[in-house]
Amino acid sequence: MKTKTEYLTFNLPARMAFENITPKIAAIVRESGVTEGLVLCNAMHITASVFINDDESGLHEDYQKWLERLAPFDASPQRYAHNRTGEDNADAHLKRQVMGREVVVAITNGELDFGPWEQIFYGEFDGRRAKRVLVKVIGE
Amino acid sequence: MKTKTEYLTFNLPARMAFENITPKIAAIVRESGVTEGLVLCNAMHITASVFINDDESGLHEDYQKWLERLAPFDASPQRYAHNRTGEDNADAHLKRQVMGREVVVAITNGELDFGPWEQIFYGEFDGRRAKRVLVKVIGE
Amino acid sequence: MKTKTEYLTFNLPARMAFENITPKIAAIVRESGVTEGLVLCNAMHITASVFINDDESGLHEDYQKWLERLAPFDASPQRYAHNRTGEDNADAHLKRQVMGREVVVAITNGELDFGPWEQIFYGEFDGRRAKRVLVKVIGE
Repeated sequence: MKTKTEYLTFNLPARMAFENITPKIAAIVRESGVTEGLVLCNAMHITASVFINDDESGLHEDYQKWLERLAPFDASPQRYAHNRTGEDNADAHLKRQVMGREVVVAITNGELDFGPWEQIFYGEFDGRRAKRVLVKVIGE
Repeated sequence: MKTKTEYLTFNLPARMAFENITPKIAAIVRESGVTEGLVLCNAMHITASVFINDDESGLHEDYQKWLERLAPFDASPQRYAHNRTGEDNADAHLKRQVMGREVVVAITNGELDFGPWEQIFYGEFDGRRAKRVLVKVIGE
Repeated sequence: MKTKTEYLTFNLPARMAFENITPKIAAIVRESGVTEGLVLCNAMHITASVFINDDESGLHEDYQKWLERLAPFDASPQRYAHNRTGEDNADAHLKRQVMGREVVVAITNGELDFGPWEQIFYGEFDGRRAKRVLVKVIGE
């Protein structure tokens, strides 16, 4: 069995933003030498996501508008009890649950085994500081 | 270490529909010869889901009604920027995030290690064409 | 390859409640002897979740309020078709989809490979009876 562990750092300027991290994950998989197995990619922070969807800017606008409607930003402790702690990002913890913490992707013949439009994204919901994504490859 | 990779194809007639794929996944696990390990099942398309819940038709109606309320179908580009591309399925990309892309299930003693009501479903949110599910077994 | 399988039982008194299960998962990982690999933790019941977020009581209040807004409890079969079966917990099946069934966590150097605030929770949405969480460790 082979394993490989890498940590990627992201520092997105906007409160809410998405970055396509597929090329970085694909490179780590190739470097691992694993030809059959799984790769786990997860946000190591609880106001961020790793998710798989389409690399289309209109869709990303839609995600932002939709998440803002489901869990609006509001720094006040009246709306969100979490903000009593001095934080202002309770909404980001909620948005991240909708989009998910992690993806697990199959590795087949040494490559990410993807459908035609699948791309891996880092999703930031609280922004403005560096956060990490863990990439763990396991297989043979 | 053993691995096995299979692709299942689904072509559901309705825009939104669910199909119980547990027997197919269980058969692949048995054929793999893996007795202890994990099986990843994921939609390979970004307007579809694989999820685990109850095989009860009333609940499936509830999921459909609820998802339609959270992310209504609307082909217009006024509501969804993604539909400026000529697509009409932005809502399906949103619905799929709520229901999830994938499940990872434990294999114990050669079988899916499930609670009493757990069943695996393929969830279609855009319908009317063939889509694939990837099944990756890893273990010993 | 090494694997280890454990089942944890929870019996939370409230309809909706969260319990931090990180110490129990960390202990199982240590007992497994796996130093590099993955651990899957999933609810074995379809009105419960395992998820990762912050151990902050205000945030947990926010999750409860937010989930109640997204999928309100209503025992009547008028609102939820699932409740025609005599069940009263259709809302719990919906809440669980938002919060997720499972998490997969990397094991590095024999420990859960976590960011600074990541904690694993059992989430109960229907309460008042014992339910199980499956923990499956796989690695070397």
